Amino acid sequence: MILAELIQNVPSLEAHCLRGASVDVQSFAEFSLAHRTHIVFINHLKHLLPAQTSQAAAIVMSPVLWDAHGGDFHHLGVVLCQNPYAFFAYASQVLEAHAQPKPLASVHSSAVIHPSVKIADGVTVGAYAVVEADCILESGCAIGAHCTLGFGVTVAADAFLYPHVTVYHGVQIGERNIIHSGTVLGSDGFGFAPHQNRWIKIPQTGTVILGADVEIGSNCSIDRGALGNTIIGRGTKLDNLIQIAHNVQVGEDCAFAANIAIAGSAVLGNRIQIGGNAGVLGHLSVCDDVVISSCTLVTKTIAKPGFYSGVYPIQENAEWEKNAVVLKRLSKMRDQVRELEKHLKV
Amino acid sequence: MILAELIQNVPSLEAHCLRGASVDVQSFAEFSLAHRTHIVFINHLKHLLPAQTSQAAAIVMSPVLWDAHGGDFHHLGVVLCQNPYAFFAYASQVLEAHAQPKPLASVHSSAVIHPSVKIADGVTVGAYAVVEADCILESGCAIGAHCTLGFGVTVAADAFLYPHVTVYHGVQIGERNIIHSGTVLGSDGFGFAPHQNRWIKIPQTGTVILGADVEIGSNCSIDRGALGNTIIGRGTKLDNLIQIAHNVQVGEDCAFAANIAIAGSAVLGNRIQIGGNAGVLGHLSVCDDVVISSCTLVTKTIAKPGFYSGVYPIQENAEWEKNAVVLKRLSKMRDQVRELEKHLKV
Amino acid sequence: MILAELIQNVPSLEAHCLRGASVDVQSFAEFSLAHRTHIVFINHLKHLLPAQTSQAAAIVMSPVLWDAHGGDFHHLGVVLCQNPYAFFAYASQVLEAHAQPKPLASVHSSAVIHPSVKIADGVTVGAYAVVEADCILESGCAIGAHCTLGFGVTVAADAFLYPHVTVYHGVQIGERNIIHSGTVLGSDGFGFAPHQNRWIKIPQTGTVILGADVEIGSNCSIDRGALGNTIIGRGTKLDNLIQIAHNVQVGEDCAFAANIAIAGSAVLGNRIQIGGNAGVLGHLSVCDDVVISSCTLVTKTIAKPGFYSGVYPIQENAEWEKNAVVLKRLSKMRDQVRELEKHLKV
Repeated sequence: MILAELIQNVPSLEAHCLRGASVDVQSFAEFSLAHRTHIVFINHLKHLLPAQTSQAAAIVMSPVLWDAHGGDFHHLGVVLCQNPYAFFAYASQVLEAHAQPKPLASVHSSAVIHPSVKIADGVTVGAYAVVEADCILESGCAIGAHCTLGFGVTVAADAFLYPHVTVYHGVQIGERNIIHSGTVLGSDGFGFAPHQNRWIKIPQTGTVILGADVEIGSNCSIDRGALGNTIIGRGTKLDNLIQIAHNVQVGEDCAFAANIAIAGSAVLGNRIQIGGNAGVLGHLSVCDDVVISSCTLVTKTIAKPGFYSGVYPIQENAEWEKNAVVLKRLSKMRDQVRELEKHLKV
Repeated sequence: MILAELIQNVPSLEAHCLRGASVDVQSFAEFSLAHRTHIVFINHLKHLLPAQTSQAAAIVMSPVLWDAHGGDFHHLGVVLCQNPYAFFAYASQVLEAHAQPKPLASVHSSAVIHPSVKIADGVTVGAYAVVEADCILESGCAIGAHCTLGFGVTVAADAFLYPHVTVYHGVQIGERNIIHSGTVLGSDGFGFAPHQNRWIKIPQTGTVILGADVEIGSNCSIDRGALGNTIIGRGTKLDNLIQIAHNVQVGEDCAFAANIAIAGSAVLGNRIQIGGNAGVLGHLSVCDDVVISSCTLVTKTIAKPGFYSGVYPIQENAEWEKNAVVLKRLSKMRDQVRELEKHLKV
Repeated sequence: MILAELIQNVPSLEAHCLRGASVDVQSFAEFSLAHRTHIVFINHLKHLLPAQTSQAAAIVMSPVLWDAHGGDFHHLGVVLCQNPYAFFAYASQVLEAHAQPKPLASVHSSAVIHPSVKIADGVTVGAYAVVEADCILESGCAIGAHCTLGFGVTVAADAFLYPHVTVYHGVQIGERNIIHSGTVLGSDGFGFAPHQNRWIKIPQTGTVILGADVEIGSNCSIDRGALGNTIIGRGTKLDNLIQIAHNVQVGEDCAFAANIAIAGSAVLGNRIQIGGNAGVLGHLSVCDDVVISSCTLVTKTIAKPGFYSGVYPIQENAEWEKNAVVLKRLSKMRDQVRELEKHLKV
């Protein structure tokens, strides 16, 4: 695709081609691997040096950077854009779609689909998929090989389920959702009432509702609600191996890294970012625009936007051991310090 | 179902209907969403206010609460029970079974079942399930679509496997077990002998044995034993994304939250509760009636029942950074305090 | 198999049979369960006592141990070897293969295999497997039931995929790899560009490349690279429920325990061992021969081989609470101590 056409296909960014409109580019590449059909982008000043020596056909950078360093790139096609990283994302989508056009929609003959299922135009269903009664497959959605959909599942328009996704009954998958393999949507929440030292199962009668443009990584577990529903808002992105417990509500445009666990009935706002291996306890809330570090456990409601951490610093084990011993008696040390202060009348 | 019949179907709790025996109820609901076919329950005093304004048909509460606040509920059917939460659990099961009767048992024509498999009465096998030689499917059990059972697996009576459960050879699934999708039972334990800087695989020749009434959430991994077996006791409930390593022994009536990992050969007692993202190191033991907080690592044997924690407190990142720096030199600070005390002869 | 033949089948260890060359052994066992067809091994001095009373047919021990305690084992066949644990590993493999010979290679009639797929000799494909265009299945490899391989996947010689493994397009699986059920290879890396408070998906155009002799446990997620590839080196072993993010490079002969997460573009060396529930932040590196404790987060590059930890010590909850409160004000306490020192001119 020539550079001018590529830019034309990314209308949401005000990019323009400074030079090389007719240069042909096929994909983005890392600076050191790029050759004459590749396009590269500069997102940080530290990329300046590797960019200068790149063999790429074209480069994307900000106007400010161009003004300061444009002279170094006289041999390349040049795209100017305020957000080169976003341009990279959008333009990669265009190039990817160009290189690998979507296969024609088709329903594999081995798929087991209940006669009551409503299948719109342009729906793809892969080999050995199982779709139970009363499911609705809206236009352009794709159900990967080996997916199983329980009764009454809705897959909204243009949603894409990779192979081996399991969807329990009644779950609602939003428009343009992307669900990766191994993920389970709508398994029972972990609800048991204690009675005479045993656990009595509480049927989980709610479901899972995913907003538009949600993406969920591989091997995640999103549990159905107990009485109400588990809800994930529009545009929120989940990495792999994430646990979302029953009745959790996640807002819009959040990004959660891998291996985190959100406990039951937690209510999370919009634009929340959580690092890997972190957790949120149940029945609390986190307001909009909060960032949580990796390996941090949110133990109480956060009502103020900001950046929160709670992770033990890593050290050589011998040092860690010495400090951990003291940590276990820390309140005693505080008392000793107080005693010293009293003694000295500081 | 009328209230009187519902109560009759929960014989294990001494509930009785104070009023509204002939009121029709279809399901439980949250206070604010309940309408005239719903039943609600009060489990905490904080629910009193929302309960008073609920549009439900009936309410469950304790006799003590009724004596104090019964006058507020003159418009509702009333069930009195010492444990309203357990009543909710049991009665929900009854209402759920009433609303969605179990489908007739059937073996899907696409299931690949070895001729040596023993199938009792009332067994259901879903589409594309694969059941290898010498498996035993006891009466009333259900094998979901896409499940695979290796040779010699036993599924005891009335066990229920959701779709996409993978069971390796020889695993024994207990009566009334519920196994959710994506869970793998009996994969190899992580056993390697170091030799000349490489890892030599140790065949894992044990298996997994699950007691009666075990429930395992979605995407869990329960490894088979190395020489002996991995065992999970009667009534124990596991949430999602849990790792149980080889030769672990878990007792009865435990409850483990999501994303925890129990390392090899750990021996856990009965009625142990573990919070999400926690861990237990290998080759140690935890006695009965222990509660472990979320994100806590059990690093040595616990021989005394109680509540144990070890989680770094969350703070605004700037505060956390300042404290973490000091934590890395904590033993030096202890020495300073000792020095001061010596100096002052405190 | 007689002891002499067993030893002959473990040529890589310099083991020799001291006594009982013609004793018949069928498998290894724990000391207490062993009877006359079993072989046991002593790896620690603490095993001496249980070994003495074992009913096994033969025992493996080091020459040093034999010199000191050989007299206690006059009734058993005896194998002497410098590394009894490695002998156990290798010899178990031999006995396992002897007891359960590999089934004849076969491609199940229900497998959906694209006509362009290249299938070498001795390949096994299980029921309902799906193999897309341009895959290469090299000699002796086995694809379990229900596995799905996207287009252009290579499975090298003698690799073994258990049932329910999902492999996205282009992934390269190495020789003799063992991949357990539920694992997903090549799902999209978690890459999004922020733009106007939304997340713009970055197509992940790289793939996953696994070296020879890699083993990956059940329910792991190994993401494909964004521009470059995600790489796991020869001989590295991964336990269950592990997240390897896009563009991570893991060296050779590493061993990672369950539930860990390695964030994007981290570069890990050789012979690294990481405990369960640990994490490594993105874009940093860890040198060869590093050991990381369980539940520890690697937050910066580690350039020196050694043993590193960062885990909060577990205590009874009441103690933990008192100490955690002080920890949240630790830097203030440091200031107090400094003030006291200044005051006293220590």
